[in-house]
Parts: sequence; C-alpha cells; structure tokens
Amino acid sequence: MKGHLIKNGDNPDITKERKSATFCINKMAEFIYEGSDKVKRREEILKYVEEHPELCDKIPVEFMTREERVERNAQKAVAMTDHADCIDGSDFFGEGMYYQTLVMGRDFHGMLLHYSMFLQCIQSQCTEEQLDKWLPLTILRGIIGTYAQTELGHGTNLKKLETTATYDAKTEEFILNSPTITAAKWWPGGLGKTCNYAIIMAQLYTNGQNKGPHPFIVQLRDLDNHMPLPNITIGDIGPKLGVNGADNGFLLFKNCRIPRENMLMRYAKILPNGEYIAPKHSKLGYGAMVFTRSIMIRDQALMLSAATVIATRYSAVRRQGEIIENKGEIQIIDYQTQQYRIFPQIARAFAFLLAASEIRDMYLNYMEKSQMTSDISLLGDLHALSCGLKAIVTFETAQGIEQCRFACGGHGYSEASGLPQLYTFAVGGCTYEGENIVMLLQVAKILMKLVKNINDGTDNLASITKYIKKKSDLKSNFKDYRTTSGEEIIKDFENIARNQILTCYENFTNNLKQSTYEEAVNKTGIEMCKATRLHVKLYLVKNFYKKVTLIEDYEIRNVVMNLWKLYAFDMLSHLTGALKCNNYMNDIQIKNIKEGIYYYLNEIRPNAVAIVDSFNMSDRELHSVLGRRDGNVYENLLKWAKESQLNKKEVLPTFKKYFEGMMKDGRSKI
Amino acid sequence: MKGHLIKNGDNPDITKERKSATFCINKMAEFIYEGSDKVKRREEILKYVEEHPELCDKIPVEFMTREERVERNAQKAVAMTDHADCIDGSDFFGEGMYYQTLVMGRDFHGMLLHYSMFLQCIQSQCTEEQLDKWLPLTILRGIIGTYAQTELGHGTNLKKLETTATYDAKTEEFILNSPTITAAKWWPGGLGKTCNYAIIMAQLYTNGQNKGPHPFIVQLRDLDNHMPLPNITIGDIGPKLGVNGADNGFLLFKNCRIPRENMLMRYAKILPNGEYIAPKHSKLGYGAMVFTRSIMIRDQALMLSAATVIATRYSAVRRQGEIIENKGEIQIIDYQTQQYRIFPQIARAFAFLLAASEIRDMYLNYMEKSQMTSDISLLGDLHALSCGLKAIVTFETAQGIEQCRFACGGHGYSEASGLPQLYTFAVGGCTYEGENIVMLLQVAKILMKLVKNINDGTDNLASITKYIKKKSDLKSNFKDYRTTSGEEIIKDFENIARNQILTCYENFTNNLKQSTYEEAVNKTGIEMCKATRLHVKLYLVKNFYKKVTLIEDYEIRNVVMNLWKLYAFDMLSHLTGALKCNNYMNDIQIKNIKEGIYYYLNEIRPNAVAIVDSFNMSDRELHSVLGRRDGNVYENLLKWAKESQLNKKEVLPTFKKYFEGMMKDGRSKI
Repeated sequence: MKGHLIKNGDNPDITKERKSATFCINKMAEFIYEGSDKVKRREEILKYVEEHPELCDKIPVEFMTREERVERNAQKAVAMTDHADCIDGSDFFGEGMYYQTLVMGRDFHGMLLHYSMFLQCIQSQCTEEQLDKWLPLTILRGIIGTYAQTELGHGTNLKKLETTATYDAKTEEFILNSPTITAAKWWPGGLGKTCNYAIIMAQLYTNGQNKGPHPFIVQLRDLDNHMPLPNITIGDIGPKLGVNGADNGFLLFKNCRIPRENMLMRYAKILPNGEYIAPKHSKLGYGAMVFTRSIMIRDQALMLSAATVIATRYSAVRRQGEIIENKGEIQIIDYQTQQYRIFPQIARAFAFLLAASEIRDMYLNYMEKSQMTSDISLLGDLHALSCGLKAIVTFETAQGIEQCRFACGGHGYSEASGLPQLYTFAVGGCTYEGENIVMLLQVAKILMKLVKNINDGTDNLASITKYIKKKSDLKSNFKDYRTTSGEEIIKDFENIARNQILTCYENFTNNLKQSTYEEAVNKTGIEMCKATRLHVKLYLVKNFYKKVTLIEDYEIRNVVMNLWKLYAFDMLSHLTGALKCNNYMNDIQIKNIKEGIYYYLNEIRPNAVAIVDSFNMSDRELHSVLGRRDGNVYENLLKWAKESQLNKKEVLPTFKKYFEGMMKDGRSKI
Repeated sequence: MKGHLIKNGDNPDITKERKSATFCINKMAEFIYEGSDKVKRREEILKYVEEHPELCDKIPVEFMTREERVERNAQKAVAMTDHADCIDGSDFFGEGMYYQTLVMGRDFHGMLLHYSMFLQCIQSQCTEEQLDKWLPLTILRGIIGTYAQTELGHGTNLKKLETTATYDAKTEEFILNSPTITAAKWWPGGLGKTCNYAIIMAQLYTNGQNKGPHPFIVQLRDLDNHMPLPNITIGDIGPKLGVNGADNGFLLFKNCRIPRENMLMRYAKILPNGEYIAPKHSKLGYGAMVFTRSIMIRDQALMLSAATVIATRYSAVRRQGEIIENKGEIQIIDYQTQQYRIFPQIARAFAFLLAASEIRDMYLNYMEKSQMTSDISLLGDLHALSCGLKAIVTFETAQGIEQCRFACGGHGYSEASGLPQLYTFAVGGCTYEGENIVMLLQVAKILMKLVKNINDGTDNLASITKYIKKKSDLKSNFKDYRTTSGEEIIKDFENIARNQILTCYENFTNNLKQSTYEEAVNKTGIEMCKATRLHVKLYLVKNFYKKVTLIEDYEIRNVVMNLWKLYAFDMLSHLTGALKCNNYMNDIQIKNIKEGIYYYLNEIRPNAVAIVDSFNMSDRELHSVLGRRDGNVYENLLKWAKESQLNKKEVLPTFKKYFEGMMKDGRSKI
C-alpha cells in the first residue's frame, strides 16, 4: 500500500517514483492532517462536492472574465452555504477551510466576510437585545453583511479613521458621514456589489466630543431591489493582482441616519440623551485575531504545499538535458539545482503546517483556561507569536510558490500550471490582516520590552521566549550534519536569535537616549525586523523538531526528520553572517552545514513524489495541469489550451479589422 | 529649475519634496538617458503618441477582458508600425523600446516577434535569393511572421527538438511533422491567432539521416481568409500570469509539404537530390542573443525604475502613524523600514541601467571590430556576461518590484497601482530567453574553465575576469563607510567573488574525479550558481562605480555616489557570511557596513522624490494612480474604481439570480 496513488495509464516516470518510496503515504497524510479520521473526512467531503454539480465549475475559472467570475462566485457561495451541512461547522480550521477551498478554489467571494468578521462582530459586540435581532438574520442568511474598517487613506492606524457617526439626541439617531475622500471605506470584501449590510467602524461623536472608533451596523442596500440607499455611494474597487471573483468595495456616506440601537453596545453605550458610557474593560479583540491568523497561517501553508506538489510531480515527468550521453534526457528532478529550489519548500510547508496546528491548540487551550479563570496572561505571548508567524509565513510562502513556479520553467507562467493563481492569491497575505513590516515591528517592540524586564528582574517569560534569558554559548557545538543532535542545532538558532535581540536592544536603548520611544523604534526599525525574523524562525524550527520527535512510526519519522534537517540547514546556510558573528561558528562548521544540505537533498530525492502525494491533494484541489496525479501533463496541456477563449473562433475579428488591409497593402507594394 | 515637475494643484507633500531637492532633475535625467538630446527625444516621442488617438487606449487595459486586450493590441500594433517613422528605427535600444512601451504598455502583442526574431532570422539565415523574396514581404508587412523553436516538451535542450522536416527528393519538398504531442510548438508569440508565417526549427532528415535542427520558413494560414492551412493545428495556449494581450500559440504539423527553397540556406544547404551541404563555419548566433539580452536588461531596469517611481511618490503622499504625538501622521517615506524597502531598489535600477548601456556599447564595439577583423575573441566573454546579467537582473527586478508593491500596502495589490502589471510582466523574464538557473550554470562553466586555464597557464582573461587571477587579500581594508574608497569596496567584492569561484572550482574538480563532466556540474550546481551570482554582482558594482566617477557635475555625482554606496553596502550586508569566511572581515567592519546603510538611507531621503522624478517617466508610461506626478492619489483612486466593469450596473444580475431568493427565504424563517 506504499504507492496507492498508482493507476493504470499513469505516466511511467511518476509510477516509478511512487514505487520507490520507502514509506506509506497514508500514514504520512495522517501525520500531516492529525489523524486517520481527518484524512477520511477529507475524502468524504471531496466526494460530496464532486457529486454536486452546483458546487463545480462548468469551465475552468481562468477562462472566465471578471464579470463571469463574480457571477460564478455568487452562485457557488450560495450553493456552498446551502450544502454547509456536509461538514462539521465547528471545525472551521479543518473541514470548513477545506470545503471552501474545494468549492471556491483560490479566490474570495462576496459572502466571505459575512461568515467571518460580520458574524464574529455580531456575536461579540452585540447586547442581548441586539443579538436577538441580528444573529438569526445573519445565520439564516436573511441579509448579507461585511465589515468595513479600512479607509482609502487609513489602514494600520485605526485611531485616525475619518468616518464619523454623530449622535443626534433629538431624533435618537446617528448621522454617518465621510467627511473627505480619504474617509471612503475601501477594500472590505463583498462590499462593492454583494452585501446589503455592514458593520461600520466610525468615530463616535456625542455632545461635541470624539469618543474614538466604535462599531455600527448599517443597512446599505434596499432589501427588495438591492439599490443603494439614499446618500450612500458604493461600488467595486476594481481589478486586483488576485481574488478577482470578489467584489471588494468602496463606500461613502453623506448624512445617513441610523437609529441609536444600531451602535453595537455590548461594551460602550450611548444613552438616548447622548450620554456616553465607557466600556468597563478595554476589550481585548486579540483572541479573534489570533484565531484568524492561525487559520491564515494554515491556509498559506496549504498553498505552499500545493505549489510543491505541482512542482515536484512535474519535475518527475519533465525530462530535459542529458547527463550521460545517449542515455536519454533525465528527469529534471535529478538536477541538484532543481532539488534545491523545491525540496526546501516542501520542508517549509511542513514547518508552517505544524506551526499552524500548534498555534490553534494554544489558542483553544487559552480559550478554555480563560473561560474558567478569566486568566488572559497567555494571550499577549500568543498574540505576539501569531503576528510574527503571520509575517514570516506569508512572505516565505509567496517566495516559495514563486520558486516552485520558476522550477516549472515556461509552463509555470501559464495559468494551466495553477501556480499564478496560487501566487497572486497567497501574496495578498503579506499585506492584509496586518501589513508584514508592521507585524514584525509589533513583535519586536514586545521583545524589547521582554529584554528590559529581564534586565530589571521583572520578567515572566513564556516558554516561547525563555531562551532570551539563557546564557549565550561562546562557541557552537555543531560538529557534523549526520551526528549533531536536533537540540544542538536548535541551540544554534537560539544563540543567533538571542544575539540579534540583545544587539538590537542595545541599539534601541542608545537611540532612546536622544529620542522619544517611537522615534527610537523608527531608528532601530531594520534591526528590529531582523530580531523578530530570527525569533520566529527559531520557533518554527523548534516546533517542527518537537513534532518530529513525537512520531512513533519509524519510517515516517525518518522521512520527516530528513525534511527537518534540510529545513534547519537551509535556514542556517542563509544566516552564516549571524553564525560567524563573534566567531560563534568557524568556517569548517559552515562548510559542513552546506554539505548537510546536499546530503539531505539526496536523501529526500527518492521519496520526493511520495512526500508530496501525502499532502493528499486531489486534482480538483490542485487545479493544475502540471500537478496532475497521473503525470499525463502534455496531452492535458494541449486539451486545456484548446479551451482558451481565443480558440472559440478559428479566425479572430482582428484579421478583417486590422491585419488583412495592412498585409494586402504591404504585398501590393512589392 | 530644480523642481520643474511642480505645478499648481499638486499634492503639497510632493511639492515640498521637490522643493527640497539638492540637484537639477534634468541634469540627472541626462545622466540616466545619456545625453540631453536623448531626453528631448523622449519628450518629442511622448508628445507624438499622445497626439494620435489610435495610439492611445479608450479605457485602461486593466478593465478589459482577454479578448478585448488581444483586439486592442492588434489595433495598436498596426497603428504603432504605421507611425513607426516618428522614431529613429536604428536606435531600437533607446527610441524603439520607449515608443513601444508608450503605445503598448507592459504587454506583448502579436507582431512582436515579426519585428524581432522573424526579421532577424530572415536577415541572417537567408541566401541572397531568399532575401529578395522574404525581406520585402517582412518589412512591408505583407505577411506576419513569428519564430517557433520551443516545443511543449522541449525548451533548453535544442538538440532534442522533435519536429521533423524530412526531405523528399522526388517532389523536392520537405515534409513537416509533429510526431508526438510533446513535439507541438508551444509559446511562440503571435503564433496562436495573428501570424500567417513562421520560421520553424525542425530536425532535418535527408536520405534517412538526421542532420540536426535547421530553420524553415512555413506558411501557416491562408493569406485571403486567414484560415489555418490543411494539416496544421494551431491556436492560442491560453491565459498566463501576464502578457494576456498576446496570443502565444501552439502548432502541430501532419505531413505538411513545403518547397525545398523554404529551408533557410545561407549556411547549411540541401541540394535538389537531397545531398546535405554542411555549413562552413559553425555559425555563432551569440551576437544577436547578446543584443537581445542587453535590450532585455534595459527593459527590466526600466520596469524596476517605474516601480520605484510609484512607490517613492506614493510614500511621500501617504501619511500613517504618529511618531510625535499630536504632530499629525507622518509621511510613510520617513520610516526607516520603508526607506530600506524602496531606496535600495532605486540604487539597483541605476546599477542595471548602467550595466545595460555598458553591454550595449561593448556589443556595438565588438560588432565594429569583428566586421573589420573577423575577430570574435571578445564574443565569448560578452556572451557570458550577458547571460549572467540576464539572470541576476531579471530576478532582482522581479523581487524589487514586489518590494515596491508591498511598500504601497493594500493599494499596491490593486491594479490601480500599476504594480501588478509590472510584476507579472517583468517576472516572465526570469524564464524566457534562457531560464535563469540554466544561465547561471552556463556562466559558471565558463568561469570553471577560466580557472583551469589560469592554473594551466593558458589563460587570456578579459578585463571582466582579470580579478580572478589576482592574489587574494587576507584581510579587508574596509574601515569606515564615510572614508573607505570605492576601489577598496570593489576589492571586497573581488575577494569574495574570487573566493567563491576558487572554492567552487575545488569542489568541482573533486567531483570530476569520480564523475563525468556533466555529472560533476550537476553535483556542484548550487555552488556554481553562487559563483556566477557573485561574479555578476561584482561586475554590477564595478561598472556602476566607474560610471559615477565619470560624472562631472558635482551635485549629480554626489547624489549618484550616495546611491552607489547604498547599493554596495546593501549587497555586502547580505553577503556577511562570505565576508567573514577566513576572517576576511571582522565584526566591527560588518557593523560599520550596516551603519553605512542607515547613513545612506538618511542621505538619500531628502532627494528621493527628485531622484525618481529624474527617471523622466510620464503618467502615461507609469500607468499608475499611486505614481501620479501630481501626487493626487486618493481622488483618482476613486475615479479609477468607478470605471470598474462591475460598476456599469448599480445592481448585478447576481441579486435576482442567487441572493434575493436566499435572503427572502432566510428572513421568512424568522
């Protein structure tokens, strides 16, 4: 059962790869997806989706115009929610995301925020009476909502949002306004054309005073004819690098009145007379953000995984170049440079998937504890970790997908490969849910504070940050890539991360002597980002290692350990400057690390196809001619190309309109 | 005249930037474009294009479907060539490329290969009689041709092309066949729908013998009705990451007969009886490739430049975050991390533009010499340099554009920024005209041979490679970023490049002991790529420095020197592992290099907008709402969004078709 993906009629090169695998891909899939029940459910959900034509596309999405994509996404979003019973809704991290990917592919849709941010806000920000009114409407899909915070001129700095909600005690209403063009709400998913309601974040003014940003629920379009309500300007923000099936929107208000009850008042309140009641606790919205980011990290990890499946399978069937004369062209996966492009991405996908699981578990653990004890001490660390991971994972995923795309040569540039869609979708993650540099700086500020606390003797470090306090080693104990233990390798990461954090802290405190806190952060910005990066990389390598050592199956552990080693050595080889700082490592050690990379590329090579097979991704999920299970790439590229919009007509109108006259004219002159 | 881009009504933040510049942007533009006449011609050509509506789009291309783009590109390609007299055709490197970019934007079109590869082949591969027949047809646009070499299953390794041209002496014809699906011609520009002729590279068979790939001119479509000729299957290969206005095509032959005269016989010949006459010289096609690549390098450099213009101007008008409380939000260009994202890309654009000019001059110089003396000794070095530069420049351009895009936050993801189009177009360059890893390895093989020759005492090094033979320094002389001379800094690059090349050579020769040459190349692949990268980076930094020192104007030289220093230190800071090898540099030197980066970011900051203004790119060329000269970004983003295809209707059909019923149903259950 080692090669259960083998079927008659497959490309013989890919069958050969599957036959030579040293492990059972089902067991590996169970490791990746955390249990045989999970893998079974993936297959059941896939079957369900494939049996329902309304959940499938008639033609591949890449051949559609933008209007057709939006239309398709509307139809499928409704169908997907019609059929939502086929999954366990409580497992959004697993089943929910998988189901959505199978149905929608790598695109957003108009109802995405309805089920995430809008619903979440209703649940967490409403009073009991408000809940009674809005929750059933939301859950039963009586309205479609979105969440509108970002403005044309304002993203990260919420305090400076410009949309105003001014309370008029006479009529007991709020008056919404977009006082400038930069106040236009901009980007919210589904806002352009789909949604008729939105939660609007606006500056609350009452009795002439600004009370800061608060959430309001606002009707945007008529329930019967879907026309925008008076004094509302609303529309789609136009085409983007990716997610063009989604109608991200803009929105401007001009004296729009909404009843007092439409302010979400679980925390802050406005009394009918206009009196403002401040919230008792400063509400920590971190919890939801941590969960959202852990889902995002997993989704990114799965996209990177998909890219590695495509690139690895294609590299097994593509033959090019002779190494031994007259022995025929070789599989391109046999080139060291090709392995170096792809295999570290496979290892990275494992690292990211395992980190996503861990952070989800930490979050659930925290939720359980906080409900019993209202202890939220864990949340700060968890929040910091999720911010840091978000930045590293999204950036490296985007880069990794592009490396996989490059590895497919010219065909990687074609939409037939599925890779352009993966890249343009995934790379958006570097910007939304917290721009990456902002994320890195946020984490760095926390790290700086930890160092200060350590120095002051007031620290209370979580296990993630304990290493910062440990004494640094003068020299690395790294000896040989075959024998040095995982713990020693992790120590190397700890040493360079700590070194960067402490050096950065020194720079930071020096800058603080002559500047304000924010100025000092700015002057130390580049070093701070580096500190966070090393801190997160250490976490990734450590968490990955922990998970490897827990694997009981010897064969599986062996294969995953090889991936871990490649992951660790590949990262270290890009950090040689840090490793050589203070002569922590010598040239021989560095050279050995490089040799370790070559060694583990070689070790992974025979199992490469089986490893990516273990991601258990169907042809439907991959949506790639190059990544097909059967390896029959070429005939299907031709078949795919024939579907091109341009091939509907043998002769395009451009001939009669432009070229015919030009050529006749040219020939007449000869 | 320092700020001649300032106009009334501009965004005050951008005006402020322009007023504070320390140099004259016209003089800088003359440095960048090599003379005031060149800058003047840019303005004349722009004026000409803008005055001719047939050279302009009615709606921005990003709002068009693929079919509309292909239609638009057909119309504009014809109009562009109709008006070709407005430029100096002999200056394709300068005027030709500029004119084409202004008219076509960042896209290919169906006639692109007609004027490049097709024409070039006709000119260089035809006999005199063939020239008489085909050259006028080509130049007068009596036919539209393309060049078809790459096949579905074959790219880099030309020897293994599968298309066959079998000579039939009875009828004096060749019979063209695509014996397998992998033999399908795939990717040629314009092949899908536009062209009616192509130069086909096919394996020549005569008297049962394979004589290798040769060029044939083949008619593909009927001249009158443009239908494909019998036994020819032809079409568009489908949508791609970019260049979707171009109809890259596929082509299959089934016993297609062409007359003997359609083999291009300037070199090899087939006599009527089928006898094969081998070419006298093995024809070196390198010259044309060098020229093509030098154009490509320049085009890539200009795309990177455009991205920096967009990101820099936007960063000057975007305000976000307070550093000093109640002083208002700051321009994001004042963040160190933002400067670090963008300014090294500006410096890189300079380095690439200067390298492109240099390689063009070397090529023209070689052409002149080779015509006089038939001396082609220079060509090998030139070819190697152009391959290496192609790989580095395309990859770093793509990465640099993405960094600029990230620097624009969410708006960078919108097509309004112009950056998605720049990226998806530019990144293709990593793959076409020689896949980058293949390029790096090719150069590395040449470097390995040079080392062998040096060791054997048979070397004859060009000035580009002379440094390999120099004695290595034990320690770097680098002292301080303010005082260390350019020559010393270049020496540091020489030392690490040489060190990598020699270490790589050692590995390579060790591998050679147990393997064939190609096996040894494969086993040393990763190190070989690194060797080429350092060799090319050294060239870039050296050539840039040479050009800086030639600048006579003090103010301009000062500004460009700051860019050079940033370029050099930024690269070195990413090469600290190499710098610390053998303790060539110590920690203090490394630290000083980092401080140099912060210092030069600061130095460049006040001139940043003026520097990118000096790229002399009009709003038409930039095609970016974020990069507008006037800085009036926000109102124009809104204006642009209103043009979105989805905004043509206030209510989309999706409401009636899907959402109305769903919501009514939902509400009825409450």
